[in-house]
Amino acid sequence: MERNIYLNNVSVEEAKEKWYKNFNLNTNTEIIDIRNASERVVSKKLVAINSTPHYHASAVDGIAVRSVETKDASDMTPLKLMIDRDYVYVDTGDAVKDGFNAVIMVEDLNDLGEGVLEIEKAITPWANVRNIGESLVKGQLILSKYQKINSYAIGQVLETGLTEVEVYKKPMVEFIPTGTELLEAGSELEIGRLIEYNSHVLSSLAKKWGADTLRNDITIDDYELIKDRIIKASERSDFIVVLSGSSAGSEDYTSHIIEELGEVYVHGVSIKPGGPVILGRVNNKPIIGVPGYPVAAALNFELFARKIIYNLQGLVEPKDKKVKVKVKTKIVSKLGFREFVRVKLTTLNGELVAIPLKRASGVIGTMVEADGFLIISEFSEGVNRDELVDITLIKDNDDYDTTLVLNGSNDLILDIVKNQLAKKRINFITKSTGSLAGITSLQRQEAHISTSHLLNPENGEYNFSYIEKYLRNEEVVLINIAYREQGMIIQKGNPKNIKSIKDLVNDDIIFINRQRGSGTRVLFDYKLDENNIESKNINGYEREEFTHMTLASEINSGSTDVGIGIKSAADAFDLDFIPIHKERYDLVIPKKYLKDERIVKLLEVIRSKEFKNEVNKLKGYDLKYTGKEMKKNDSNR
Amino acid sequence: MERNIYLNNVSVEEAKEKWYKNFNLNTNTEIIDIRNASERVVSKKLVAINSTPHYHASAVDGIAVRSVETKDASDMTPLKLMIDRDYVYVDTGDAVKDGFNAVIMVEDLNDLGEGVLEIEKAITPWANVRNIGESLVKGQLILSKYQKINSYAIGQVLETGLTEVEVYKKPMVEFIPTGTELLEAGSELEIGRLIEYNSHVLSSLAKKWGADTLRNDITIDDYELIKDRIIKASERSDFIVVLSGSSAGSEDYTSHIIEELGEVYVHGVSIKPGGPVILGRVNNKPIIGVPGYPVAAALNFELFARKIIYNLQGLVEPKDKKVKVKVKTKIVSKLGFREFVRVKLTTLNGELVAIPLKRASGVIGTMVEADGFLIISEFSEGVNRDELVDITLIKDNDDYDTTLVLNGSNDLILDIVKNQLAKKRINFITKSTGSLAGITSLQRQEAHISTSHLLNPENGEYNFSYIEKYLRNEEVVLINIAYREQGMIIQKGNPKNIKSIKDLVNDDIIFINRQRGSGTRVLFDYKLDENNIESKNINGYEREEFTHMTLASEINSGSTDVGIGIKSAADAFDLDFIPIHKERYDLVIPKKYLKDERIVKLLEVIRSKEFKNEVNKLKGYDLKYTGKEMKKNDSNR
Repeated sequence: MERNIYLNNVSVEEAKEKWYKNFNLNTNTEIIDIRNASERVVSKKLVAINSTPHYHASAVDGIAVRSVETKDASDMTPLKLMIDRDYVYVDTGDAVKDGFNAVIMVEDLNDLGEGVLEIEKAITPWANVRNIGESLVKGQLILSKYQKINSYAIGQVLETGLTEVEVYKKPMVEFIPTGTELLEAGSELEIGRLIEYNSHVLSSLAKKWGADTLRNDITIDDYELIKDRIIKASERSDFIVVLSGSSAGSEDYTSHIIEELGEVYVHGVSIKPGGPVILGRVNNKPIIGVPGYPVAAALNFELFARKIIYNLQGLVEPKDKKVKVKVKTKIVSKLGFREFVRVKLTTLNGELVAIPLKRASGVIGTMVEADGFLIISEFSEGVNRDELVDITLIKDNDDYDTTLVLNGSNDLILDIVKNQLAKKRINFITKSTGSLAGITSLQRQEAHISTSHLLNPENGEYNFSYIEKYLRNEEVVLINIAYREQGMIIQKGNPKNIKSIKDLVNDDIIFINRQRGSGTRVLFDYKLDENNIESKNINGYEREEFTHMTLASEINSGSTDVGIGIKSAADAFDLDFIPIHKERYDLVIPKKYLKDERIVKLLEVIRSKEFKNEVNKLKGYDLKYTGKEMKKNDSNR
Repeated sequence: MERNIYLNNVSVEEAKEKWYKNFNLNTNTEIIDIRNASERVVSKKLVAINSTPHYHASAVDGIAVRSVETKDASDMTPLKLMIDRDYVYVDTGDAVKDGFNAVIMVEDLNDLGEGVLEIEKAITPWANVRNIGESLVKGQLILSKYQKINSYAIGQVLETGLTEVEVYKKPMVEFIPTGTELLEAGSELEIGRLIEYNSHVLSSLAKKWGADTLRNDITIDDYELIKDRIIKASERSDFIVVLSGSSAGSEDYTSHIIEELGEVYVHGVSIKPGGPVILGRVNNKPIIGVPGYPVAAALNFELFARKIIYNLQGLVEPKDKKVKVKVKTKIVSKLGFREFVRVKLTTLNGELVAIPLKRASGVIGTMVEADGFLIISEFSEGVNRDELVDITLIKDNDDYDTTLVLNGSNDLILDIVKNQLAKKRINFITKSTGSLAGITSLQRQEAHISTSHLLNPENGEYNFSYIEKYLRNEEVVLINIAYREQGMIIQKGNPKNIKSIKDLVNDDIIFINRQRGSGTRVLFDYKLDENNIESKNINGYEREEFTHMTLASEINSGSTDVGIGIKSAADAFDLDFIPIHKERYDLVIPKKYLKDERIVKLLEVIRSKEFKNEVNKLKGYDLKYTGKEMKKNDSNR
């Protein structure tokens, strides 16, 4: 099997330099109606063809007079004026006709009736008269070359009597998704085949940057077919984007085809995610090949294609906007690679901080959530917790004080909270770290709040003993979200005939575990202890999932027979469930945040009827104490 | 004549409060293809219908194996694997089929030929295998209500197998321009009639904020006609904008019609520019009436309509972005009115400063140029020079260090410079202050550079004596732009038979002057002196224009017979010209800016062939010394 070898592995700057220098970009121009030209770029300067106003226009509502005739008027010697002889009425914008040279405002007139008006002061020549050309003078430059037209400029062009403007055409960016294993959007899923969506994401970005786009159907991994499409694209479009499937094969074709038809300048850039980008030229058009992982594809497109799309329109690529923040987690990065860590920004403890998101290149959701990138240099091995760093923003919004961050135990209920908080304009970010890591992350000030269901086997209480041990110098309040059923999630119909936790040691049963530190793991290990079961006898004890839902999802796939999780997760996948324990699931809220608008709204949600109605549609929850504060040693609970 | 009386004159906040509380805004919803949904707002939450990946997918290119079989492999005891029996090839994204549970990367394989591969280390279970649901778990919340869809979210929706999303409809904003005196865009100009363009400017703003728009043709000032259009609009659109003509009449109709059909909550807000806004309701739809002056119309629309348009889509109005800067000019403002002063931002002397633009409400060009508003409170009488102020930004760009500000003597050539600097991505802002005010503004650090043609009658030299007197502690360099012809600009054919400056005292001749401090005024006063003419004998000596072009424009209109100006201005209006003097027109550049990129590019332009070619298309210039430094006492010049 032929495998692809990267031609080079250069820095971002070197790659840009090698690629961009080969093009003198500009689309053709076109003449369009100025009323549709907002955000377009002027290709030919435009000058005023008329002065505006083009006549002496009254600036107010009043009467046009000859100023010299008013020179003796005063409050002691008021002057009477006769209509038509001494004055005419004018409204704002009316012409001040020949002979008249000033306008007296209506507020300064006493109406004596029968066309006679009285004034009590003189008026200077040309008072309240707009000069000819006050706004624009004939011949004046209105639009410069390369000017981006804004809404107001539309007014200036129309005002002088013009309706058309010459602008650069929107560049046509053509997308060629490739990969035999890919399915078109909306297809029925098949094992081994994923839906192609990168082309739609990048096309949306290209449009946002001002381009028109054209997308080919998916091309299977066939050298001649891909080549044919690249040739066609290079004839009709300004910029070509080839999207590799996830297989190395199609990517390999792309670089060889570009070599054959034109030139490959760069193949492979030392960044993470997403090294194997191809930057080349075909038919004097720039062409980029992006890798299949969605975050890698998007990052490469932002890094390399954005400038091309702006330049094609005659625009300079906007400067990256940056913000200086503390990063709340130590991040290790590989030397030799510039890493782009997606981060969410929020205000925590009164300062702006960056919360790193998942680093997996296959999770496009992290790009949906991210406010920006923390860029770790190729010469650095990472950043320390609380280090001050620059975040390169990828979103326009800056509503960081409406972002609420929860690290802790996961539950389907949190999605209900998220949607209801969204209605209250709070952006709720949850990280499924498990209960214990959630509590320690509060200790490290990495999140606002946590969720926890940590059982103390010694007294049957929840959470307090762990909080006392791991969360020092921080007063917290525990608010109950729900009691919930934990149990064994098993295949529908229970084909392996599992009856109790003791059956997990059977040879033919494959188990899947939750990660250490999760409340569910603590519960499970306690139950093993109680039943004198040794973990090494459980087939799959080492395999860890991080949420109830991914665990249920794995069992549903058939790869695994059983795992421990909540009833609602079993239900979501229509799996069977054997109850083990009813447990308490609490919010852990530092007292200092209780008056924070985000927490106030969170508690409003938890205590609302709408929330309880939604949770009651799921199974396995008891909402008796929902929204209530949990106190230590409360024997009723 | 019935005149309109403002119902009230409230603050911006009070007006907003009185108006907004009457509506519970939201458009209807619609289901659209997610691929066209970028920037749209989710009206119904969306959850994943499939986990993704929905199977165990290889994360790399390599071979799928059973991990347990590799446990003894090491570099000392390499393990041989036979194709199909021990492994199968997988590419990234391929399914890791039942029985296999790990993938060894291609880089870690030694190919021994004939299907035999050798490995030198064991692999852990599920290594290099993407979990089911790694990206999305079935049932997981993808889009929350009120979420604004970004490009990446498109990927998430497609990935799970969906193609549609429920969003809020784009609000329909309907514009009703009124005013008998207005002309449609592109019409031939007539005296007393101006082109209606406010509706097009505001429509462009509404689209930028996410709306669809509908514009009526201009309605003449007729109560029943306007009423009819408002009724129709209130039935089919979500938000109605009535644009008054500049006459009080049509505005008056609007408020009475709204009173008749619904309710007027506010009529008149204490702001400048643009008080007489009308905020009301018809058929439960919000309706706004904006005044005719373009800056007032735009300001009222930004202040009051933007929130409505965002809210209709389910969005919160974005917060205003502000920047703290020094303001470079003392600004006086009227107590009782909140004034919105348009400003341009630039870096001057290493700090970010705000340059106030013209305050006339009729000059839409100031909105084209402005980066933001300096908002002066109704309780303040203004701001002092060098006071630190907040600027509320109205543009996204922040390329303030590419903005070059010139205060000084005006010439048509500066428009040529502006367009050529635009090509070099420098935004050139010129204020026609006249030569002397230009020099003193350099002294006050209000601009980067100046232009000057100030004659010293005592020795015939230009500029140096004035600079010595008015510009202290600032070393400057003088670079010649051109020598140019000054003279009398007169009506075509010279109907008043003007022969020399001595004729200006004739009774039947109406003169128009330039402002005090302008180089042209200095020249003219010198010439009067030379000819023993007293200024009081010149009819129109007191009437001042600020540029050559507006002066020529006035003469062209026929209101005036003669003024002093440059030949190119006379030519631009096809007027006659009687030369008086050939004078030097210089750039004044503080030495500290000579290495500033803006000045470097400016001098490149002045010294370019392209610039000289453009200037040579005008008349009355001598470019012998263009681009050369002017030294004191250089007798050759």
